[in-house]
Amino acid sequence: MRDRDEEWMRLALTFAQSAQGQTSPNPMVGAVAVKEGRMIGLGAHLQAGTPHAEVHALAMAGAEAEGSTLYVTLEPCNHFGRTPPCTEKTIASGVKRVVIGCIDPDHRVAGEGVNRLREAGIEVVVGILEAACLQLNEAYFHHRKTGLPFVTLKTAVTLDGKIATATGDSRWVTGEAARAEVHRLRHIHDAVLVGSGTVLADRPQLTTRLAGGGIHPLRVVIDSQLRLPLDTPLSDVSVAPTWVFCTEEADRKREQELVKQGLRVFRMGEEEVDLSRVFKTLGYEGILSVLTECGGELNASLLRGNHVTEVKVFMAPKLLGGKESATAVSGENPLKMAEAIHLTDVKVEPFGEDLCITGKPLHEEKGANH
Amino acid sequence: MRDRDEEWMRLALTFAQSAQGQTSPNPMVGAVAVKEGRMIGLGAHLQAGTPHAEVHALAMAGAEAEGSTLYVTLEPCNHFGRTPPCTEKTIASGVKRVVIGCIDPDHRVAGEGVNRLREAGIEVVVGILEAACLQLNEAYFHHRKTGLPFVTLKTAVTLDGKIATATGDSRWVTGEAARAEVHRLRHIHDAVLVGSGTVLADRPQLTTRLAGGGIHPLRVVIDSQLRLPLDTPLSDVSVAPTWVFCTEEADRKREQELVKQGLRVFRMGEEEVDLSRVFKTLGYEGILSVLTECGGELNASLLRGNHVTEVKVFMAPKLLGGKESATAVSGENPLKMAEAIHLTDVKVEPFGEDLCITGKPLHEEKGANH
Amino acid sequence: MRDRDEEWMRLALTFAQSAQGQTSPNPMVGAVAVKEGRMIGLGAHLQAGTPHAEVHALAMAGAEAEGSTLYVTLEPCNHFGRTPPCTEKTIASGVKRVVIGCIDPDHRVAGEGVNRLREAGIEVVVGILEAACLQLNEAYFHHRKTGLPFVTLKTAVTLDGKIATATGDSRWVTGEAARAEVHRLRHIHDAVLVGSGTVLADRPQLTTRLAGGGIHPLRVVIDSQLRLPLDTPLSDVSVAPTWVFCTEEADRKREQELVKQGLRVFRMGEEEVDLSRVFKTLGYEGILSVLTECGGELNASLLRGNHVTEVKVFMAPKLLGGKESATAVSGENPLKMAEAIHLTDVKVEPFGEDLCITGKPLHEEKGANH
Amino acid sequence: MRDRDEEWMRLALTFAQSAQGQTSPNPMVGAVAVKEGRMIGLGAHLQAGTPHAEVHALAMAGAEAEGSTLYVTLEPCNHFGRTPPCTEKTIASGVKRVVIGCIDPDHRVAGEGVNRLREAGIEVVVGILEAACLQLNEAYFHHRKTGLPFVTLKTAVTLDGKIATATGDSRWVTGEAARAEVHRLRHIHDAVLVGSGTVLADRPQLTTRLAGGGIHPLRVVIDSQLRLPLDTPLSDVSVAPTWVFCTEEADRKREQELVKQGLRVFRMGEEEVDLSRVFKTLGYEGILSVLTECGGELNASLLRGNHVTEVKVFMAPKLLGGKESATAVSGENPLKMAEAIHLTDVKVEPFGEDLCITGKPLHEEKGANH
Ligand SMILES: [Zn+2]
Ligand SMILES: [Zn+2]
Ligand SMILES: [Zn+2]
Ligand SMILES: [Zn+2]
Repeated sequence: MRDRDEEWMRLALTFAQSAQGQTSPNPMVGAVAVKEGRMIGLGAHLQAGTPHAEVHALAMAGAEAEGSTLYVTLEPCNHFGRTPPCTEKTIASGVKRVVIGCIDPDHRVAGEGVNRLREAGIEVVVGILEAACLQLNEAYFHHRKTGLPFVTLKTAVTLDGKIATATGDSRWVTGEAARAEVHRLRHIHDAVLVGSGTVLADRPQLTTRLAGGGIHPLRVVIDSQLRLPLDTPLSDVSVAPTWVFCTEEADRKREQELVKQGLRVFRMGEEEVDLSRVFKTLGYEGILSVLTECGGELNASLLRGNHVTEVKVFMAPKLLGGKESATAVSGENPLKMAEAIHLTDVKVEPFGEDLCITGKPLHEEKGANH
Repeated sequence: MRDRDEEWMRLALTFAQSAQGQTSPNPMVGAVAVKEGRMIGLGAHLQAGTPHAEVHALAMAGAEAEGSTLYVTLEPCNHFGRTPPCTEKTIASGVKRVVIGCIDPDHRVAGEGVNRLREAGIEVVVGILEAACLQLNEAYFHHRKTGLPFVTLKTAVTLDGKIATATGDSRWVTGEAARAEVHRLRHIHDAVLVGSGTVLADRPQLTTRLAGGGIHPLRVVIDSQLRLPLDTPLSDVSVAPTWVFCTEEADRKREQELVKQGLRVFRMGEEEVDLSRVFKTLGYEGILSVLTECGGELNASLLRGNHVTEVKVFMAPKLLGGKESATAVSGENPLKMAEAIHLTDVKVEPFGEDLCITGKPLHEEKGANH
Repeated sequence: MRDRDEEWMRLALTFAQSAQGQTSPNPMVGAVAVKEGRMIGLGAHLQAGTPHAEVHALAMAGAEAEGSTLYVTLEPCNHFGRTPPCTEKTIASGVKRVVIGCIDPDHRVAGEGVNRLREAGIEVVVGILEAACLQLNEAYFHHRKTGLPFVTLKTAVTLDGKIATATGDSRWVTGEAARAEVHRLRHIHDAVLVGSGTVLADRPQLTTRLAGGGIHPLRVVIDSQLRLPLDTPLSDVSVAPTWVFCTEEADRKREQELVKQGLRVFRMGEEEVDLSRVFKTLGYEGILSVLTECGGELNASLLRGNHVTEVKVFMAPKLLGGKESATAVSGENPLKMAEAIHLTDVKVEPFGEDLCITGKPLHEEKGANH
Repeated sequence: MRDRDEEWMRLALTFAQSAQGQTSPNPMVGAVAVKEGRMIGLGAHLQAGTPHAEVHALAMAGAEAEGSTLYVTLEPCNHFGRTPPCTEKTIASGVKRVVIGCIDPDHRVAGEGVNRLREAGIEVVVGILEAACLQLNEAYFHHRKTGLPFVTLKTAVTLDGKIATATGDSRWVTGEAARAEVHRLRHIHDAVLVGSGTVLADRPQLTTRLAGGGIHPLRVVIDSQLRLPLDTPLSDVSVAPTWVFCTEEADRKREQELVKQGLRVFRMGEEEVDLSRVFKTLGYEGILSVLTECGGELNASLLRGNHVTEVKVFMAPKLLGGKESATAVSGENPLKMAEAIHLTDVKVEPFGEDLCITGKPLHEEKGANH
């Protein structure tokens, strides 16, 4: 039966993935109910606060669920959250076999879902297409394991590593296809993070502007001195929330003004904003994934501070030059080339005439408990 | 017969290409003699001063050449050079049909080979696999057309465009496979060009160190002030010749010392070496191709001066950072990102874990007659 | 917005296809409801008599459907069938835009769904990914257009075209992977058709025996003389229905016995069963697709009678030989090789060590109205 | 140095292969002479009776050969054949290192070439790209090992295995591309073998008719009763030789007539021509490879008699049908499907709209010494 189990699980994965970017802080989950070789229900979790994938699939199956097999990419929940536990619904529906992609590491589930189903006499199989099920929710699992968000450092450079001229001009490094992909990345990340320098220079909206709409990320600004003006697009929190992280010494009056506009202001760190505490805070607040869109200095701090889970470099096939042009990563001067941070799992994808090079920094071993 | 002609020409191209890197200042040429569907002779031009491809093929064919068809990737020569003209040998051999890939733009040939053969009553077909035959000798044709060498700007960078730390350490940006490819590039280029800064910092040999040997390129140093020390590997001209280009003002005494060591010294330009004159000189001296291995300043001058025909960026999947780390292209600060030099015909190849990104700068329209 | 429309339609197609083989006589349909760049509902039609795809998607969306865009691969129905019309549900839900893959040729829909939605003030776009939406339900559209089922002639041969030895042994021509694919084909076809000779020789069950179950097709036997014994697996109609087509002259008593067992018996044709009438009958009875698994004689009649829409030849890399071995297509002797029936849209796929060659007979222009 | 050795050997292989089809009964051989990373000579063996590959390469190298490395795909010969031994030429030329692809199994070489070179103080490396060097001359090695030719059974069939109608019409099963490939196959095989039935029905020329010419194979006819007419194209032995194999009982007068026309006639076998003796004879006469183009009966005898080394089925995407149409393999009726002859190393290639399926019959273990 294994082969057929994989086929149905693959379908459940497809359903799960169809909701990419819209389920946070919940994971993506897909479910399929099958009886006598025929799919009688299907579902995906679409948004926090709405029914879980299993609930949709069982609702679609109706009375037919009796005696069926339920495929679900993640262990069913067994606790009363915003919705009643899926285990109870499954048991009540008369399902006789549950096939699960991977265990949910959430401390409120963590095997309890499987236990409850087995207690109720249901046959449970765990681990079908497990690697794919884990990969699907990489950010969710990272967050559950470390308490920290999955951080994607994004930058757009010329072949010679430049992100802007010495005068700050950066319109545009990459072409339309790459820029559209950045909006898609914003759609699937919970937060986007920038430095105040970028805000002052570019006055970005940091919203998701895809044809047909998209979900705006939380906007996070690293702003040691609270230099953030009151009239940037980030002050309009009716569009999306904006959180500002500054040092203990930053101006109190500006804080009050920003708070009055609806922004949240967090103080952490003395001379510089303490990035470790920033990410712990974001993780604590349920932010699973952060897309950073910063300049060279902040990129250097993020990388050297070991805060980055993945790097995405959009690279335009052109050469800018310029002794003082801005580069993607600046910061303190390393003495040796050997100090460079290596990437693994490197992947190259074309976007129009540009490339996107993705990889994971080696030795990224930071967790919430350090 | 066209299809069969293409097959034989493809074979001739294979033979031509087998001598890549060793024929300069001559082009690569391959030849095949065919009679009744059977190859009776084959040849490639192997080195300047040795027989042309057609001569080898006809020699191998011997008396059988009578009545055969000769396939040759480039128009046979019709002038007495270091060897007697191939047209006469072809006519004397009794060949009845000659199929030519492309016309030789060399002013001493330029259609005269075809004319001579036709005068002698031989059927001549021109243009079989012409695009491939032209591509094969891209540098040769570039030189014949412009009087200038084909210039390949080579650099090795991190993802963030760094070529060295602020202190000059660059060991190593890329891995072994990419570095071996650089030696292969030296083998197939006539000259390698560096700035005196690179010589002072790294004391490179600039030779071809492939397992099993290889041909060393001419070593060219751009050295405004003649700072080149007398004790670098470049002073040993028994390995390969070294030419130094300096300004009119450079030290006369140092020139004498270098000349005594066997180096050639050229003066061109006032404050800076006049690169246009450098490449005209190299072209005039029969150098078809130059591989540049320079730092950011000289790279900027080469690019902004429109001297570069092709760019090859070896890119390591790592991030160095550093405010003052050296980048691949520095020079004057452009004001606008729109001033970046675009590359066309972009190609990405893997070398071990590194990438090589190749492209041609747009608007490169410089010629010897400017 | 077009690009985004295609993305959502592609998702709807994925959902539709997930129910392949289980929707007949209905087409496969998928639906997605989207609001502000977020999927708020999804659905697929799973089985005749159960809700349509749109109904599932709108139910999942709930109150959120107000103001959303509904993507559906096939025009929504506008008539009261086994379920109320989807147009009314869509209008009632407050959807403001409907994007449709292709028009439903069913005479009860045929543009009326679009008209009804537009009358109600909904913006309607038709034809997004139309080719893929048509391809998905190729059999359904074929049936609606011609009144006849889509007929797939399946056979399993050696490289020399043999399907059995002269004594009838055929265990096995192909390997496990190819034989498993045949069961998948039975799952996705409404009916499987054989000759009585095959039943007598092999006593096949003609059921879908996939790990994990599958849907059994209607079993159709072409049996001129009603030679079908009473004790074959086909007599057990509790597993799947069996229909037998015989000539007007066939034995009346045997008919009564078979009918008593629960089989249906149809009489059409004098000396031979009239295959045109067989397929018209099947089409009339709502059979969208037929998989034929016949011997050489019946295959010849099917092909020469122009009844075949697609051919699937599973080919084992072996040679049987034998002057009187059975071949895949026998029948009357053609005089000229030029009389062979050409296939177009030929595709070759590997199944284990066997190949499957698929193609469509040229000049297949038969319709129900001939 | 290994990597570089492989590069040069690959080049030598390319040169060897360029003479495919024209070297028999000699093997294809390529050679490259290299000095200081530079190719100074290249060669291929082009035709029996002309110089060996090494001789060409050393001739091209001239005095430069002193101190060079010689790459040769096959062990140099050490015996006085039609040409003096290559070992002596190599020693005389001053080569200091010889790199060999594979040992020559010919009993007159078989390691003696290597021994002679080593005795002379030359460094010898054996086995670089050995698998490719062996594959290149598969037929030659097969012949040296078994004394028998490499036999390629070629046939052209419809998808249902038919090669002709019952009346013998077979014009055309496959399209132009496949038929051109057959002429290429004739060019690279030493002999083509047919039955007298094919000659009577089709009166084929069995020559190589490629645009631009090609080498005609020896024409072999299996003709038990010497029914071969005197006026077929095969009687014109000025085009290519024709050999006829008949039984002991065949007509003596007809034999005399054929012999008078210049054909050779061999008698072997009583009621049927003894195919084992046919192939032993062909092998003994120096025929390395035979392409069979026979009907179903002779194909069956060739396969069941275990005479076939490789099968090439050109398959047209069409169905002919016909109870008595001719199939690719007929002969005695096997009782079980399990008696089919399996092919291994199966490869599928497209030729125009046709396919070519190539494979090797399993259990082909016949040798000359059985
Ligand atoms: Zn749940
Ligand atoms: Zn010449
Ligand atoms: Zn409906
Ligand atoms: Zn030899």
